[in-house]
Amino acid sequence: MNDYTGCFSRAASTMQESAIRKMGGLGGRVPDLISFAPGFPALELFAWDEFRDVATSVLDGADPTVLQYGPTRGYRPLVEALPEILAARGIAATPEEIIVTTGSQQALDLTGRIFIDPGSVVLVELPTYTGAITAFRNAQATLAGVRQDADGIDLDDLDRVAVRELAAGRRIAFLYVVPNFQNPTGLLISLEKRQRLLEWAARRNVLIVEDDPYGALYFDDAAAAGDTRPIKADDRDGRVVYMSSFSKTVAPGFRVAWVAAPPPIAAKIEIAKQAADLCTGGLDQRIVYEVWKRGVLARRLPALRREYQDKRRVMERALASELGDLVSWPAPKGGFFLWATLPDRVNTDALIARAVAHRVVYVAGSAFYVDGRTGSLARLSFSAPSASRIEEGIRRLAAAVREELGATAAVSAASSRRA
Amino acid sequence: MNDYTGCFSRAASTMQESAIRKMGGLGGRVPDLISFAPGFPALELFAWDEFRDVATSVLDGADPTVLQYGPTRGYRPLVEALPEILAARGIAATPEEIIVTTGSQQALDLTGRIFIDPGSVVLVELPTYTGAITAFRNAQATLAGVRQDADGIDLDDLDRVAVRELAAGRRIAFLYVVPNFQNPTGLLISLEKRQRLLEWAARRNVLIVEDDPYGALYFDDAAAAGDTRPIKADDRDGRVVYMSSFSKTVAPGFRVAWVAAPPPIAAKIEIAKQAADLCTGGLDQRIVYEVWKRGVLARRLPALRREYQDKRRVMERALASELGDLVSWPAPKGGFFLWATLPDRVNTDALIARAVAHRVVYVAGSAFYVDGRTGSLARLSFSAPSASRIEEGIRRLAAAVREELGATAAVSAASSRRA
Repeated sequence: MNDYTGCFSRAASTMQESAIRKMGGLGGRVPDLISFAPGFPALELFAWDEFRDVATSVLDGADPTVLQYGPTRGYRPLVEALPEILAARGIAATPEEIIVTTGSQQALDLTGRIFIDPGSVVLVELPTYTGAITAFRNAQATLAGVRQDADGIDLDDLDRVAVRELAAGRRIAFLYVVPNFQNPTGLLISLEKRQRLLEWAARRNVLIVEDDPYGALYFDDAAAAGDTRPIKADDRDGRVVYMSSFSKTVAPGFRVAWVAAPPPIAAKIEIAKQAADLCTGGLDQRIVYEVWKRGVLARRLPALRREYQDKRRVMERALASELGDLVSWPAPKGGFFLWATLPDRVNTDALIARAVAHRVVYVAGSAFYVDGRTGSLARLSFSAPSASRIEEGIRRLAAAVREELGATAAVSAASSRRA
Repeated sequence: MNDYTGCFSRAASTMQESAIRKMGGLGGRVPDLISFAPGFPALELFAWDEFRDVATSVLDGADPTVLQYGPTRGYRPLVEALPEILAARGIAATPEEIIVTTGSQQALDLTGRIFIDPGSVVLVELPTYTGAITAFRNAQATLAGVRQDADGIDLDDLDRVAVRELAAGRRIAFLYVVPNFQNPTGLLISLEKRQRLLEWAARRNVLIVEDDPYGALYFDDAAAAGDTRPIKADDRDGRVVYMSSFSKTVAPGFRVAWVAAPPPIAAKIEIAKQAADLCTGGLDQRIVYEVWKRGVLARRLPALRREYQDKRRVMERALASELGDLVSWPAPKGGFFLWATLPDRVNTDALIARAVAHRVVYVAGSAFYVDGRTGSLARLSFSAPSASRIEEGIRRLAAAVREELGATAAVSAASSRRA
């Protein structure tokens, strides 16, 4: 067989490679590349000594079930600990509402599969997280984009879009939203708007899928813990499916995240997960649980917040000094991302080749839009590189931008002459 | 919201809980239960000392990428080692044909998603692995059952079923088959039949999905390594998607399995996996890789084969001595399962309650049939319990069977009297 095209399902035929993962793959091929592409946590902040201690004790053989198949819901002590972790965020949840997932990406995938029929509408922000886009598209959702303003999703546009989709006879599966330090914009939805969002969802009878990987990583100079109170915390209706992760605060290599949802939804996700991967890794879950139980996570969070805040500041200063008026962005109040707007003449999809030639890479804004737009936006992750690499990377990016502006100026001058 | 029924997708509405997982869940609730239900490897055979040594060295901080997000294809040294592991099985594969998955269940799920459209036919054996049934059903496949004879799938019936499905205008996505020590029957497909299966697939232009978790666990008293040569080894056509796992030979808690498939198929699975869970756990993959590289796996395999062979013998003797003519089974030549036939009057679905009352459990044969049949078949896993627990469990099972036979005799005597 040479041509497998006819073998693939319709869903597979339309699956698209992740833009972030594609950019991530460049790392191995371009020497000395500085990557602002993936939302990777900083390696130097991992708790290596504690991980090693915990792994050694977890693997001492005293509990041989550590490496056996485990319950699909998750390692029971972790399932029972998560309500306590959630309570600190204002969310009241019982273990019956919890399911551990193999990273947040699996939470998105399973949530998509249990709610989306081919053609169902998922309401998403413009822009929104590209991993959610691909998960929901793989379930054959129609993604309907909703505008943002300075504090996140625009509620008037949300209602307009919802009414339009309902009028067209389509079923709305849910609204997907990242209220805390959104990926890719870094925006924080105000508490008042969260309340109105819940009221809207009740009025229109729409489920909300709330994705919160970054809530614990607020920056003290711009936000407080109280500002990150999840929508789920005020969900008296059982209308919010909440998901969060240990990937950004412990380490992503462990692949441990979770969902908190009304019991019938959690039960359905459990059944979907049985067929998806049976259970999340037993060693990973126990290490994450012990890291939490021994207080390692709580002790480290202030340092994590400080380090990421510092990295953000380094990137902001470097951008201001290297590109000045050529770049602007909403100030991130937490999280990993800076959402940069370059001059109109710069198309960030086209700029990538030039950036890579300068040994720097980012994710073009187009990857986060479900309406097919391209433009002058770029997501720059400041989380993983060191301060000096951030500075060097922004110097390289600035060189690429100036080169691109020179080239577009030359092209436009040439076309003026021709005209 | 009280009723979420209307929120779920059609796929979710038809998702069924795994019978094996349901039986597995009994363990925590019934004290002193002996479970022959799940296909769990034996905990006492795990290489605890080696796992601990490897984990300590992997987490020494020298390679900080250990706990970062990793490539979707898998940890590169593992991806490059797998062709060597496959070569020992007669399969020539390049790294471009390999993708690491989060357990074999994910391999089944992703394979299903890339090939199955709603209503596509998947050809499966009667009986077949229940985890494959649920994965393919979740992709909304129509499962068409094919009879078995003493050396596995019946090729005449296979062709009849395929022709019938094609004549009905349905698309055949693939044939799913477990040639080595099938789950649940323990059957081994003969080498000659494997050749004819490949010829049939070429003639009918059908893909084969070959699932091989147990191939390395043949029993020296009944089979040799050569008897387990995968169908994939002779696949000159690029028609076979092969999957195998470290769950049965290293430990399932690590959640590391893999697929070997023609590059365009492997690439499609990679894209599907990006949206499913981004990547398989980094620590898990490195531990499994080191266990292989240090020769731990190769050194332990002979002992694993011997131990499982011994457990099988213990179960066979216990069955013969406790139930005599009331039970029969095809002799397992490898793997974890014994496929028992009880007297016609015993329905193994109905027997479960009585068995649990006797503190023993198994999986009823009905879980493995896609044609809805129930009957007097049961899958008994001999892999996990100790020899003495196997003996005690079979004593309990025999008591339940005799009790059931007494009850059915009483019922039939009563109904004779009424008649």
